[in-house]
Amino acid sequence: MLYLIGLGLAYPEDITVRGLRAVQKCERVYLEHYTSILMNSSMEELEEFYGKKITLADREMVESGCEEIMENADKVDVCFLVVGDVFGATTHTDLVLRCKQQNIPVEVIHNASVMNAAGACGLQLYNFGQTISMVFFTDSWRPDSWYDKIMENRKIGLHTLVLLDIKVKEQSIENMARGRLIYEPPRYMSIAQCCEQLLEIEETRQEKAYTPNTPCVAISRLGSNKQAFKAGTIEQLSKYDSGEPLHTLVILGRQTHELELDYILEFVDDKENFKKMVIEDQEFFKPAPWVPEEEHMSE
Amino acid sequence: MLYLIGLGLAYPEDITVRGLRAVQKCERVYLEHYTSILMNSSMEELEEFYGKKITLADREMVESGCEEIMENADKVDVCFLVVGDVFGATTHTDLVLRCKQQNIPVEVIHNASVMNAAGACGLQLYNFGQTISMVFFTDSWRPDSWYDKIMENRKIGLHTLVLLDIKVKEQSIENMARGRLIYEPPRYMSIAQCCEQLLEIEETRQEKAYTPNTPCVAISRLGSNKQAFKAGTIEQLSKYDSGEPLHTLVILGRQTHELELDYILEFVDDKENFKKMVIEDQEFFKPAPWVPEEEHMSE
Repeated sequence: MLYLIGLGLAYPEDITVRGLRAVQKCERVYLEHYTSILMNSSMEELEEFYGKKITLADREMVESGCEEIMENADKVDVCFLVVGDVFGATTHTDLVLRCKQQNIPVEVIHNASVMNAAGACGLQLYNFGQTISMVFFTDSWRPDSWYDKIMENRKIGLHTLVLLDIKVKEQSIENMARGRLIYEPPRYMSIAQCCEQLLEIEETRQEKAYTPNTPCVAISRLGSNKQAFKAGTIEQLSKYDSGEPLHTLVILGRQTHELELDYILEFVDDKENFKKMVIEDQEFFKPAPWVPEEEHMSE
Repeated sequence: MLYLIGLGLAYPEDITVRGLRAVQKCERVYLEHYTSILMNSSMEELEEFYGKKITLADREMVESGCEEIMENADKVDVCFLVVGDVFGATTHTDLVLRCKQQNIPVEVIHNASVMNAAGACGLQLYNFGQTISMVFFTDSWRPDSWYDKIMENRKIGLHTLVLLDIKVKEQSIENMARGRLIYEPPRYMSIAQCCEQLLEIEETRQEKAYTPNTPCVAISRLGSNKQAFKAGTIEQLSKYDSGEPLHTLVILGRQTHELELDYILEFVDDKENFKKMVIEDQEFFKPAPWVPEEEHMSE
C-alpha cells in the first residue's frame, strides 16, 4: 500500500491519528520537501515523533517519476508525507495515476491545508475565487498572468487567495551551470514583498484589477502558536513587517459580507479608514454584483 | 481555553493528534451536530475513543448564543468539535468573536474539510470558483440564486463545488406548528436529486449557465473507505445511484486541464463520449478564457 498522508500546517502532532498509525507501520517514509515546510517542526523531530527514519523527496525525485517511492509498494507499506493536504496547493494526482497503472493500492489520509484553513482569517471560503501564486520576481522574469485572474475574481466579487513563493533547495544559476550541488539558503516571500509586486504590476498595466487602496488580509504562520492576521490596504501592507514565514495574502472581493468585515476589523490599525477603503473598493467594480432581492421561484 | 477542533471527514481517528490531546484534557466536550456528520462514526464511538462524554450542540444552541458552550471557558478547558474544519462550509467566526469580547482564549485546531479534500477527485483546487449550496426543493420553495454563481464561475472557466443539503433534526411543519418535539429522520441529498434540480432550473431559466451535457464529477463518501467518484454529464448523473451519503458534486469549468481530464477519465463509463462532452462544453462559453501564450514581462 502507498499511503499519501497530509501533515497539516505546523506541528508534528498536526498529523491525524489515522495518519500516524499508517506512518508507523510503513517500511519506508518519504517527505515531500520542496513546495512547503512544516513550520514548527524539523525533520529530526518528525523522525523522533514517528519513530521512523524519513527520506526527503525533493522535486527531482517526485517529478522524475517517483520510481523509488513506488518500488515494491504493492507488497510492503510505504508512505509519502505532504505538508498541508495531499491535493492542496500542489497536487499529487500524477503519483496516484502511476500507482493505478502499476496496480499499487493507494490510500489518501487528508489533512488541513492553507486552501481551507485560510478561513481562519474570517473570510468565508464560499466566496473565494481561483487561487493565484506569486513568485519571486527576478531582473528578467516578472510574470504577471495572475493579474488577469485577480481581475476575473474581483469582477464577480470574489476574494483571491495569494500563495507566496518559497524557494527550498534552489541552486544559483552559476552553481547550476557549473554543476555544483550547492544550494541557496531557503527563501520565503514576505507579505511586504508580495504587496510591492502587486503594486508594481498594477502600475505597469493600469487596468485597475485592484488599486493601492484595495483591502487585504495578511495571514502569517497559519495554524501555529505564532499565527497572526493583519488587515490593511495593499499600500499599507507593502510596509508591514510580517515576521517569520509562512505567509499568505487574501485580496478582498466586493462581496465582503458584514460578518466577514466585523471579524477582520479586529486585525486593523485604523478601523474607520479601513471601513472607508472597503466601501470605496466595493464601489469600484460597477455594476454591483447581481444580488437577488428575494429568491426566484421556479414555480 | 475554548478549543475549536476540526474532526476531518469520516473516522474517529481522523482527528489530529493535537486535537485528540486537547479533547482529552477538556472538562466539557460539545459536538456541532447540524451541518454535517462524521460518516464512519457514531457519537458513542467518538465518546469511547476520546474517553469523554459528548454533548450534542444543535443549531439552536449554537446560533442562540453559545452561552452554555462558553460558560466558564476562561477558567476551564472546553472544546467544540466540528466535522470537517472549523472554518469550512459553516464558519464559526461568530463564536470566536464572542469569545474575544469576553476575554476567553481560543485555540483552533484545523483539519481537512470537503473544501480542500475535494481535490481528491483530480480537479485542481486552484481552479475552483465560488462554492454553492443546493438545498432540497419543496413544493413552494425552489431557490435558484446559485444559478448565477455557476454562470459567473463558468464564464471565467472555473469549476464549481456544489455542497448538497443535509437535514438533521428537522421538524415537519405540522409538528413545528403544534410544538411537538418530534424530528424527521435525517435526509441527505443524492447526486441524482442534485442533478435533477440543476436540470429543472436550467429548463426554467434557459440562460445556459450549463446544459444537460455539461460534465461533472460526483464525489461520494469522501475520505472514507467507501469513497467513490463518478464522472458524467449532468443528465447522466441525474440517473446515477450514488449510494450512501455524503455526496458532493463538481461542475467542470472550461479551464479543465489535460492532467485533470486524464485523472477524471478513470471515473467515466464511456471515455470517448465524455471527452467529446468536455470539448463541446469548453466551446460553449466564447470567447475562450484569456490564456497567455507566454508570460508578460513587465521589464
